[in-house]
Amino acid sequence: MFELKKPYLLYLGDVQNPLDAKTAMGLKDWCPEAVLGEYARPGASVSLGLPTIAPDQAHSRGIGSLVIGIAPTGGQLPSAWVADLCAAVRSGVDIVSGLHTRLESIPELYHASQQDQAGRLINIREPTREYPCATGRKRSGKRLLTVGTDCALGKKYTALALTRALAKQKIAATFRATGQTGIMIAGSGIAMDALKGDFIAGAAECLSPDNTPEHWDVIEGQGSLYHPAYAAVTLGLLHGSQPDALILCHDPRRSHIDEYPDYPIPDLQQAIDCYVSQARLTNPWVRCVGLAINSTGMSEQTLQKYIRVHEASLNLPVVDPLKTDLTELLNSLLSAHEN
Amino acid sequence: MFELKKPYLLYLGDVQNPLDAKTAMGLKDWCPEAVLGEYARPGASVSLGLPTIAPDQAHSRGIGSLVIGIAPTGGQLPSAWVADLCAAVRSGVDIVSGLHTRLESIPELYHASQQDQAGRLINIREPTREYPCATGRKRSGKRLLTVGTDCALGKKYTALALTRALAKQKIAATFRATGQTGIMIAGSGIAMDALKGDFIAGAAECLSPDNTPEHWDVIEGQGSLYHPAYAAVTLGLLHGSQPDALILCHDPRRSHIDEYPDYPIPDLQQAIDCYVSQARLTNPWVRCVGLAINSTGMSEQTLQKYIRVHEASLNLPVVDPLKTDLTELLNSLLSAHEN
Repeated sequence: MFELKKPYLLYLGDVQNPLDAKTAMGLKDWCPEAVLGEYARPGASVSLGLPTIAPDQAHSRGIGSLVIGIAPTGGQLPSAWVADLCAAVRSGVDIVSGLHTRLESIPELYHASQQDQAGRLINIREPTREYPCATGRKRSGKRLLTVGTDCALGKKYTALALTRALAKQKIAATFRATGQTGIMIAGSGIAMDALKGDFIAGAAECLSPDNTPEHWDVIEGQGSLYHPAYAAVTLGLLHGSQPDALILCHDPRRSHIDEYPDYPIPDLQQAIDCYVSQARLTNPWVRCVGLAINSTGMSEQTLQKYIRVHEASLNLPVVDPLKTDLTELLNSLLSAHEN
Repeated sequence: MFELKKPYLLYLGDVQNPLDAKTAMGLKDWCPEAVLGEYARPGASVSLGLPTIAPDQAHSRGIGSLVIGIAPTGGQLPSAWVADLCAAVRSGVDIVSGLHTRLESIPELYHASQQDQAGRLINIREPTREYPCATGRKRSGKRLLTVGTDCALGKKYTALALTRALAKQKIAATFRATGQTGIMIAGSGIAMDALKGDFIAGAAECLSPDNTPEHWDVIEGQGSLYHPAYAAVTLGLLHGSQPDALILCHDPRRSHIDEYPDYPIPDLQQAIDCYVSQARLTNPWVRCVGLAINSTGMSEQTLQKYIRVHEASLNLPVVDPLKTDLTELLNSLLSAHEN
């Protein structure tokens, strides 16, 4: 389990394309209170509009971690960034990276991190410890898991939006991160894709431990049972999470699994039935409480029509968690689990 | 993918209990042509009835690999064995181990393996390479996968028995190993439990590559979709294998998942339906062609009655692959996939 030191300085390197700064933007949107500043190298052309803090000033400005907030092409750390990262880690702040390059593999950075008062090098892609195999024992407290018709269509943001909406209603809720950006946002979590198959369900059990009876863990889903490569992680996370409630996440623009043209997106009712039936293994009381769509590119009118049609056919609330009101979905969640 | 050098010398260490020599016995039963001898230390009390070959004589007697054929308590390599293993590796034979201890972590053994003409140190628990993510592309040739109502109830031996039965009928078939003992028997394979979740389906695709249209890959299943800890590996292997045929393996004596008393063994028809429905994602033509039971401890009369009752209720051939005739099961397999 990662435990990151907030607040963050978002490192933007040489960013030219806002799409490459997705991680940094997610952090700014979902944990604004933890994001104190940004730093881009000379020549970069994207800004998040945050105060600039130089890496060597980070510690004295109260920063806990410098977070690499952009994805360079190929996932490798460009050598031009090394001096900035060394300055930050020497000053005492941690470096947090989701890149393929292990931070310790860069000699200058490793040496800088070994000095007195230096910060830690944290590779979010690597497991921090070994996890036990799942026990299957039912835990106290309540759990919601977001699941999807495909990968990368809003499972993380749906979970974050739900956690926020529950908190607004004064209902105790904790976002539980299972991927790199989620872990940076939450400041803790387990990267499920870094684990061997036999330990995924066990790690998911550790991620949402026993809690008070009315507390909701809102767990970020991974992958899809309909993905020919990634369903194993999805199923292990589903079993170990023991969800009481599922929300199916979906992107209406997709006709097939992203990058797998021969694999159609499933029918929504079939997908709900499939997830519920697999989830019953570890929680016989599981229910699907709503559909969350990513309506990017849809007109307001089309979105409203989509919601009407699908609320009727699925008999469930349908939302775009970043755009529409979540009251009905929260009611569905809470009423299904009153007893 | 492991590629082991046969023939084998089976190393039995200080074995006192025949149950601890399960791996060695499996090798003797399933690849007798590849097992030339055994070696136990003075004081051991179990023999497989094979010629004794001393480790330092292994190479001159034509041995390719010394295989550690017993499971010591705790999975660690006892220090008393090190001299034997050093003698063998120095003589030029490979050492093959499924223990938790990495062979290279024993300094004497590592040094012995670095000498001229020395053999290799092979840890079956560790992946030999990285595998790509699954492509989901349909491959040529035919595939059978054994699946189970639980772990450890005969998936490997069912696959081996089927491969043997197909070969007897002059039908081209290859056993594909996915676990340690299976890999030792086959001399190659991929240990699925050593892989990160996102690569399980991809590795399974590599394990049974394109083949001639009538060739059968008979793939050793792992875990169970009904196991609260291990279903992730099962699903990844199911998707990547793209099986045309499934055989459900079952132990009628079990009422619940081994070591998980709160998890009942599923109804057989439900289990068949569940496996078929998940397997359809990557192969819409998949069918379950039979039930294979482990009838240890059952009288002949009870076994025959069990077979009659379940053949009628499931409308499928039911066999104990180590005891009963497989003709009907082979007919079911071949007739379902004639076209």
